[in-house]
Amino acid sequence: MKNLDETPRSERNTENNCQEEENQLETSHNKSPLLSDSWKPYQRPRAIVKEWLLKLRCCLGAVCGMEWYGYAALGILTGFLSFLMDLSVSKLLRAHQWLYMKLEGHSLLQFLCWTLYPSCICVVGSSFSHSICPFSTGSGIPEVRAMLAGFEMPHYLSVTNLFTKYVGLICTLAAGSTIFLGKVGPFVHLSTMVGAYLSKLCSLVQTNKKDKAAGEMMVVAAAVGVASCFGAPVSGVLFSVEVMSSHFAVKHYVPCFFSTACGALTFHLFSVWSGDGETLQVLFKTNFPTALPFYPLEIVLFALLGLLCGAVSCCYLFCHRWILQVIKTNPIFIKWLTTEKALYSGMVAFLLASVTFPHFAGQYMASKYTMKQLLTSLLDGRQWTSESHNASVQVDPKPWLEWSSSGSSVYMTLTFFLLMKMWMLVLACTLPVPAGCFMPVFVYGAALGRLFGEGGAYVLSGLTSGQQWASINPGGYALAGAAAFSGAVTHTLSPALLAIELTGQFSHAVPALIATVLANARSRSGHRPSFYDAISISKRLPHLPSLKKACPWLPSTPVGQVLGAKAVQLQKTAGLVEVQHAVNSCTETQIPVVDSHESQILLGFVLRPELLMFLRHCKTETVEKHLDEVCCIHRASVLLSPHNTVQEAHSILSLVGTQALFVTDSGRLVGLITWPEMKRILEDLAKEI
Amino acid sequence: MKNLDETPRSERNTENNCQEEENQLETSHNKSPLLSDSWKPYQRPRAIVKEWLLKLRCCLGAVCGMEWYGYAALGILTGFLSFLMDLSVSKLLRAHQWLYMKLEGHSLLQFLCWTLYPSCICVVGSSFSHSICPFSTGSGIPEVRAMLAGFEMPHYLSVTNLFTKYVGLICTLAAGSTIFLGKVGPFVHLSTMVGAYLSKLCSLVQTNKKDKAAGEMMVVAAAVGVASCFGAPVSGVLFSVEVMSSHFAVKHYVPCFFSTACGALTFHLFSVWSGDGETLQVLFKTNFPTALPFYPLEIVLFALLGLLCGAVSCCYLFCHRWILQVIKTNPIFIKWLTTEKALYSGMVAFLLASVTFPHFAGQYMASKYTMKQLLTSLLDGRQWTSESHNASVQVDPKPWLEWSSSGSSVYMTLTFFLLMKMWMLVLACTLPVPAGCFMPVFVYGAALGRLFGEGGAYVLSGLTSGQQWASINPGGYALAGAAAFSGAVTHTLSPALLAIELTGQFSHAVPALIATVLANARSRSGHRPSFYDAISISKRLPHLPSLKKACPWLPSTPVGQVLGAKAVQLQKTAGLVEVQHAVNSCTETQIPVVDSHESQILLGFVLRPELLMFLRHCKTETVEKHLDEVCCIHRASVLLSPHNTVQEAHSILSLVGTQALFVTDSGRLVGLITWPEMKRILEDLAKEI
Repeated sequence: MKNLDETPRSERNTENNCQEEENQLETSHNKSPLLSDSWKPYQRPRAIVKEWLLKLRCCLGAVCGMEWYGYAALGILTGFLSFLMDLSVSKLLRAHQWLYMKLEGHSLLQFLCWTLYPSCICVVGSSFSHSICPFSTGSGIPEVRAMLAGFEMPHYLSVTNLFTKYVGLICTLAAGSTIFLGKVGPFVHLSTMVGAYLSKLCSLVQTNKKDKAAGEMMVVAAAVGVASCFGAPVSGVLFSVEVMSSHFAVKHYVPCFFSTACGALTFHLFSVWSGDGETLQVLFKTNFPTALPFYPLEIVLFALLGLLCGAVSCCYLFCHRWILQVIKTNPIFIKWLTTEKALYSGMVAFLLASVTFPHFAGQYMASKYTMKQLLTSLLDGRQWTSESHNASVQVDPKPWLEWSSSGSSVYMTLTFFLLMKMWMLVLACTLPVPAGCFMPVFVYGAALGRLFGEGGAYVLSGLTSGQQWASINPGGYALAGAAAFSGAVTHTLSPALLAIELTGQFSHAVPALIATVLANARSRSGHRPSFYDAISISKRLPHLPSLKKACPWLPSTPVGQVLGAKAVQLQKTAGLVEVQHAVNSCTETQIPVVDSHESQILLGFVLRPELLMFLRHCKTETVEKHLDEVCCIHRASVLLSPHNTVQEAHSILSLVGTQALFVTDSGRLVGLITWPEMKRILEDLAKEI
Repeated sequence: MKNLDETPRSERNTENNCQEEENQLETSHNKSPLLSDSWKPYQRPRAIVKEWLLKLRCCLGAVCGMEWYGYAALGILTGFLSFLMDLSVSKLLRAHQWLYMKLEGHSLLQFLCWTLYPSCICVVGSSFSHSICPFSTGSGIPEVRAMLAGFEMPHYLSVTNLFTKYVGLICTLAAGSTIFLGKVGPFVHLSTMVGAYLSKLCSLVQTNKKDKAAGEMMVVAAAVGVASCFGAPVSGVLFSVEVMSSHFAVKHYVPCFFSTACGALTFHLFSVWSGDGETLQVLFKTNFPTALPFYPLEIVLFALLGLLCGAVSCCYLFCHRWILQVIKTNPIFIKWLTTEKALYSGMVAFLLASVTFPHFAGQYMASKYTMKQLLTSLLDGRQWTSESHNASVQVDPKPWLEWSSSGSSVYMTLTFFLLMKMWMLVLACTLPVPAGCFMPVFVYGAALGRLFGEGGAYVLSGLTSGQQWASINPGGYALAGAAAFSGAVTHTLSPALLAIELTGQFSHAVPALIATVLANARSRSGHRPSFYDAISISKRLPHLPSLKKACPWLPSTPVGQVLGAKAVQLQKTAGLVEVQHAVNSCTETQIPVVDSHESQILLGFVLRPELLMFLRHCKTETVEKHLDEVCCIHRASVLLSPHNTVQEAHSILSLVGTQALFVTDSGRLVGLITWPEMKRILEDLAKEI
C-alpha cells in the first residue's frame, strides 16, 4: 500500500527534508569505513568536493524532486543513444552501398558483397550477444511487459545487457533491408535498462523513496523508448499506457510526458546539429496535398483497408506462432539454436540476402532501398501509375523509381514484395540477435496500403471515368495501412498515432485511427494472441494478459488450488527457538503471525529486521520473552480468500503495491502470495497451454 | 471484483449466448403482463416486428458485442449534437453581427444592440436552465470527475438535464466573445449524459452485463465529449486518462479510441456536408512556414513562455478561488444568486458587453472578433509588427486587422486585452449558466503567447540585427502559450495535444509539450488546486484528488476514525426476527454475517434477495431454521483494517469494483464501506477545509 499513500506524507515534510538528508548523509559518511579511512589520499580536497556536491544536491532538490532530474536524464540519454545508433547504422549502410556501387559490372563480386556483408555482420552480432549476455537477443518488449506487471527479472536489466544489446542492435540494423528487422522493441528494452540504472542512481542520492522510484522509472522508460526511437513524444506515452498490464496509474502521466518530451527533443536536436536538417522535423517527410487530403467517402475505403490489414495480420501471426512452435520442438532447430547460433544466423542472413540480390529476385522487390527509403517511397503523395503513364513530362525526382526498375508494373512488384517478405519476415524473426519486428511490419503494412491505394485509384478512375477520383492519394492509404497492420500484429492502437507523428500528416489522423481500430478488432477476435503474446507464451514469461488471450479460463483458477507449500508462520507467543527457525527457513520480509498454531487466526505480520532484533534481545536478556512482548505486530491491510481467482490476486498485488498478500479463510491463515510466488504460479499456468 | 474476472467467463459462452438470450426474452415476454395483454391492437404485426427485431439483435450480436454499437452510437450522436450546436451558434452570432452592421452610424442604437443582445440571451439561458434543471449550470467537469471516480449522482445524468444544458449552452455561446465563455466542459457533461442514456438502452437489449457497461460508457463518454467538441480524437482519449481519479483501466482504451474516432468523423463529415469545407480539415487552419517551423534554440524561449504561463495561471487561479469564496460568503452575492439568477446574469452580461463596446474600450481589445476569429488571428504565422511596417506592400488579407484597428501598437492592444480579460473572465465564471472555461483560457493563453512571441521577435531582431531571427514565427508561440496556459489552469497535459490537433501543426508538438509541462510544474507546485479542483471543493463534491491537492494530509485519515454508525449485521444462527429486523432497517445489497454477536468474527455476507427468500421460507414452514441452514454465506473477497487510510479504502473500492468493503480488526467486523458511505466520508472531509 506504500505507493498509494506515500505522496502526502512525503510532501508534508518536504521543507525540512533537505537539511535532514544532509545530516543523514554526513552521519553515514562518518560511519562508512571506506570514506573515513585515513590512509586515503587528498582528504581535504575530497571533503571540499563532497561538501560542494551536497550543496548542489540541496540546490537541485529545492527546485524539484530528484526523480525529475532522473526523468530528464533518462530522456536525454536515451535520445542521445538513439541518435548515435542511427548515425552508426547509416555509416555502415553507406559503406555497404558504396562497396556495391564500386563493384558495378562484376556480378559475382557484387553478389558476394551483397550477401557476405550482412551475413558477416549478423554473425558478429549474434556471437557477440550470445557470448556476452544471452538475454540480450530478441525484441525485449515481452520481457519489459512482464517487468512492468511487477515481476523482477534482474538479468534483463544489467548494464552488461545494455552494452551487448546496443552493439548487437547496431549490427542487426546495419544488415539493412535484406534482413528486414527493426529498432523499436530492443530500444524500449534498452531504455528500461537505462531507466533501471538511473533509478538506482536516484535512490543512492535520495534516501527515502527507494521502492517507489524503480517502478515509476520503468513505466516512464517504456514510454521514452518509443519516443526517442522516432522523436515521437505522444505515441510513446500511449504505448506505455497500452503495455501496462491492466491499469495505468495516472500519476505516471506527467513524468512520462516530461521524459518523452526531453527524449524527443534530444533526438531531434542532435539530428539538427549533425547536419541532417536545419530544424526539428518529422522523420519521414511527406508531400501529401494539403488542400484536399481525401474525399469524405474515402473513409469507407480506409475501413476496408483496415479489415484487409487485420486479415493479413492473422495470417502473419499464424505463421509466426507456427515457427515459434517449430523452433521449440524440431530437434534440428533446437540443436542449431543452442550450439551453433552464429552459424545459424550467418546462414539465414545469407539465404535472405541471396534472395534479395538485385540482379535476381531483388529487382522485383525494390531491395536496393534501405528501410527508410522504402517507407519514404511508399508514403509518396503522388499516384505511381498515373505518373508512369506520362513519364516524359515528369521532371522532379521520383522516389519510387526502384519499384518499377525491373520494367514490370508496380502492382506486380508490390504483390511480389508482399508475398516474399511474408516468409522472409517470419524466418528473420528466428534469428538469435537483438532485433525488433515493429518497423518491418510497419513497412509491410505501408506496402499493403500502397497496393490497395493504387488499385483503388485505378479501379475508381476506371469506374467513374471522371476527374473526381483521379486525385486520390495512395500515400494516405500507405500511411493508414502501416498503422493498421502494425497495430493489428501487436494488438495496439498507438501505431496509429505513431504513423501520424512520423509523417506529421495530421489530416489523416481519423482515417488511420479508424483503419487501426478495425484491424485490431479483426485480429483480436477469437482469442488470437498478438505477436508479443506469442513470444511471452513461448518463453513462459509471467505475463497474465498473454495467458488470458491464449486460454481465457486459465486466470480464473482459484488461488486456493495453486497456492504452494504453506508459508512459515509464527504464533503470537513464539519464543526464541521458533523465531530462530523462522528466520533461518524463510527469506520473506513480512512473516505472518497467528493467534496460535491450532486456531490459525491471522493477527498480522512482523518484519524480518524486527525478528533479528528480537533474537539479539533474547540473547542478551536472561528471561525468555514472547514475540508479542518485544515486536510490533503490524496489521495486514488487504486480505484475500482462497476463492479469489489468480487474476484477482494478481490485480490486487500489482495495484496496492504491497510485498505480500495474506490468504485467509474466515480469519484463518491459509497462505501467502508474494511476487516470486505469483511468478511461479503464472509460469506453472503457462506450462499448461 | 466482478469487473476484473467477468471477461473470460462471459467469453467462454459467447457461442450459445444468442439462442439463450432469445429464449430468455421470449419467456419474459410471455410472463410480462403488459406485453401479453390480449386487448392491445395489432397482435400479429407486433409479433412479427418483435421477431424481426430479435433476429436483428442476433445478427448484430454475431458481429461484435452490443456495447460496441453503443460506443459507435455515442460517438455519432455526440458528434452530431456538437455540429448542430456550432451551426445554431454561428447563425445566432451572424444575426448579431448583421444587426450591428446595419446600425452603422447610429452609435446609441449600436450600443444597445451590442449590449442588449448578449444580455437578453444570457437572461434567457439562465432562467431557462434554472427553472427546468438547476443542476445544468456551470462547467460539469467537476461532477463528471466525481462520477468517474465511482460516485452515483443521478441528478446530473437525467435526460431533462441533457436538454436544458444543451439549450442553455447554445445561449451562452451565442452571447459570443463579449461574455467569453466556452463549450468544452459542458460538452463533456452532455456527452456523459448521452452515454448514461445509451448504456441504459444497451443494458435493456443486453441482459447479462449491466453493471459493467455503465462505468465503461462513462469513461468513453468523457473522451468522446472532448473529441467531438473539436473533432480531435487523440486528445479526447488523453483527457479521459487524465480525469480518471487514480488509475486508467487499459481495457477502456480501445473503446475510447473507437468512440472518439466515430465522434470526430461525424463532426467533420457534417461540417463537410453542410458546406463548410470540401474535406475533413482541422478546425483552425494555420499558415505556419513548413520549411523552417522554428530554430532549435527557440526551445529555450518556449520553455520560458511555459514558465510565464504557469505564473500567470497561478494569478488567475487565485482570483478564481477568491471569487468562489466571495460568492459563498458575501450576503449580497448569496441573495442575488439564489433568488435573482436571471437578473444577475443580465446585469453581468450588460456590464461585460458595455466594456467591450467597439466604440469604447472594445477597440483596444479586438472585441469585434468571435472566439474562433480571435484564435485564428492569434495563430497567424506572420509577424504582425514587421508586416505593419511595410503595410503598403501587403496585398493578401490580414486576419489580425482588428488588433491594430485603433491605431495603437499591437503590443499595447495585446497587453490591454490580457489585463481586461483577466477580471472579465473571473467575473464571467460566476454566471449561473451552462458554460465552460477551457476555450476562453485557451484564447487567453494564445494572446499571452502571441505577445511573448511578438516581443521576442522584436527584441531578438534588435539585438542580433541579423536576418537569422527575422523569420521567427509568433504564431508558434501563440500555439504553445494556448496549450501551456490552459494546461496550467486545468492541471492537465492534454491541451498540448489538443492545440496540435486543432491546428494540425505537428511540427510544434515538442515545443508545445515542453511549455505545457513546465507551466504545469509551475502551477502545481505548493498544493494549489486547479480550476476544477476549486469548484469541486467549493461545491463539496466527493472527489478525492481535489481534497488531496487542497489538504494533502486529509486523505491519510485512518478509516477507523471516520467510519459511521455500525452497520447492520446478522449472526450465523439468526432466526426469523433478527433477519426481519435487518431487512427492514437497512438497504444494502450485501449484509455481513458474523460468527456470533459476541465474538464478531466475520464469516462473509448474504445477499438481500436471499434474505427475502429466507423470510418467505420461514413463513411457509413450521420449524424455525437458522440463517446458515437456508442461505449461502458468501466469502468477502477483500478485507480492510481500521488503520487503512481513507485514500487506500477509496482506491481499493474503485479498483476492485465491489459494492462493499468490510473493515475487520483481527477477523472481527468493525464496519462496512460502501459507495454512499464513502461519499459521506469525503463530503465530511471537504467541510474541514
